[in-house]
Amino acid sequence: MSELTIWTYDWVPKGPRGFVRDLRLRWACEEAELTYAVRTVAFDGRQTNHLARQPFGQAPFLSDGELEIFESGAGLLHLARKSDKLMPRDPVGEVETLQWTIAVLNSIEMVTVPWWFLKMSSDENNGLGEWMSKRLDQLEKVLSEREWLATGRFTVADLLMADVLRVSDVRSFGDRPASEAYVARVTDRPSFKKARADQIDHFEAADEKRTKK
Amino acid sequence: MSELTIWTYDWVPKGPRGFVRDLRLRWACEEAELTYAVRTVAFDGRQTNHLARQPFGQAPFLSDGELEIFESGAGLLHLARKSDKLMPRDPVGEVETLQWTIAVLNSIEMVTVPWWFLKMSSDENNGLGEWMSKRLDQLEKVLSEREWLATGRFTVADLLMADVLRVSDVRSFGDRPASEAYVARVTDRPSFKKARADQIDHFEAADEKRTKK
Repeated sequence: MSELTIWTYDWVPKGPRGFVRDLRLRWACEEAELTYAVRTVAFDGRQTNHLARQPFGQAPFLSDGELEIFESGAGLLHLARKSDKLMPRDPVGEVETLQWTIAVLNSIEMVTVPWWFLKMSSDENNGLGEWMSKRLDQLEKVLSEREWLATGRFTVADLLMADVLRVSDVRSFGDRPASEAYVARVTDRPSFKKARADQIDHFEAADEKRTKK
Repeated sequence: MSELTIWTYDWVPKGPRGFVRDLRLRWACEEAELTYAVRTVAFDGRQTNHLARQPFGQAPFLSDGELEIFESGAGLLHLARKSDKLMPRDPVGEVETLQWTIAVLNSIEMVTVPWWFLKMSSDENNGLGEWMSKRLDQLEKVLSEREWLATGRFTVADLLMADVLRVSDVRSFGDRPASEAYVARVTDRPSFKKARADQIDHFEAADEKRTKK
C-alpha cells in the first residue's frame, strides 16, 4: 500500500459528490503523479467519531507514513513540497505559490463559503453579498492580467482557487469573464477530470453497499 | 536597513489600533528575534493605491530582500521557516504547525470574521451564530486537553490562533474557560506585548503628523 493515503467519507449524499474536498488532494496527487491510496471514515456520526484525527469533524485528511495532516489547504502545501509540478523550487516561485494558496483560503473562501452557508440556510440575499462582489471583482482584475496566479505557471494555488470558484453558486454571482475562462482552463486538466470522476465513482460504489445493508 | 520589512498603513482610526494584522508579523519577528523594519503605504486610497502589491487592497505585506509576500498567514509561514522558535524543524512538528496555522485561517477565522462583519453591519444576531458556536466549542474541547495547538510547545499557530480569538467580540461569544485561559497564556508573552505597544505607538505618532497637515 502506498505511504500516501487520502482519507475521506465512506459515503455522502448525491449533492456534494464531485465537490467534497478530498478532490483537492486527489487532484494534487494526480497532477504530481504521486501514488496514493484512498481510505474512509464513516459519514454517519462524523460530528464525533473521528475528532481525534480531525477536531472539527470534517474530511479529508491525509496520512503520509507516520505523518497525519488535516485541513485540505495544509495537505496541499504538504504535497506541493513533494513535487515541483505543484510548486516551483525557486524562492520567488515558492513564496508566490504560498501567498496565493493562503489568499484562496483566507481572502476568497472566507467570503464565498459563509455567503453560500447563509444562502443555503434560506437567506438568499444575505449581508455578505457586497463583500463577495468586491472580492470577486478584485480577483477578476488579477485574472484579466495573467493566466496563472503565481509565478507564470500552473501551481497548487490555481488548483485550489479553481476548486473554490467552480461551484455554481460562485459562478452565478455576476458575470466575470476572466475568472470564468480561468476556471475553465484550470479544470480542463486531465488531473482534475480524473480526480472528480474517481470521487464520484467512490461515492456511487458506496450507494450499492448501503442498499445491501 | 534590515532585509526584512513589514509594510502597514501610515495611519488607521483609533478603533482597529492594536488589531491591524501587521501585529501578527511584528509579533512573529519579536518572538524569533528577527531584525525588521516597518514601512508604510497610505491608508487613504488603500482600495486602489497599492493593488500591485496587495490585490485586495489590504495591509500588511512583508518584504524579505527581493521577495514580496502578502497575506499575513503566508507571511507567518515564511517567517516560521527562518526560526525554530516559531516552528520546530522535525517533520511531525512542522506538519502539525502547518495544519493548525491553516485551521486558524480556514476553519476558525472563516467563521469569526464574517460573523463579526455581519454583526458590525447591524445584524447583531446573524445567521452565522450557530456555526460560530459549534466551531468555538470544538476548539474549546481541543484547548481543554492541551496547552499548545501543535507539537506540545508554542508555535506560530498559537500566535495566529490567539490573535484571532483575542478580539472582544469572539471572547464575549459564550463562556469557554479553556480558550480564555489559552488566549491569556499566549498573549502574556513579552513578544506580543511589545508588538502591540509598537503598533499603537506607530499609529499614534501618525495622529500628530495628520494634525500638522
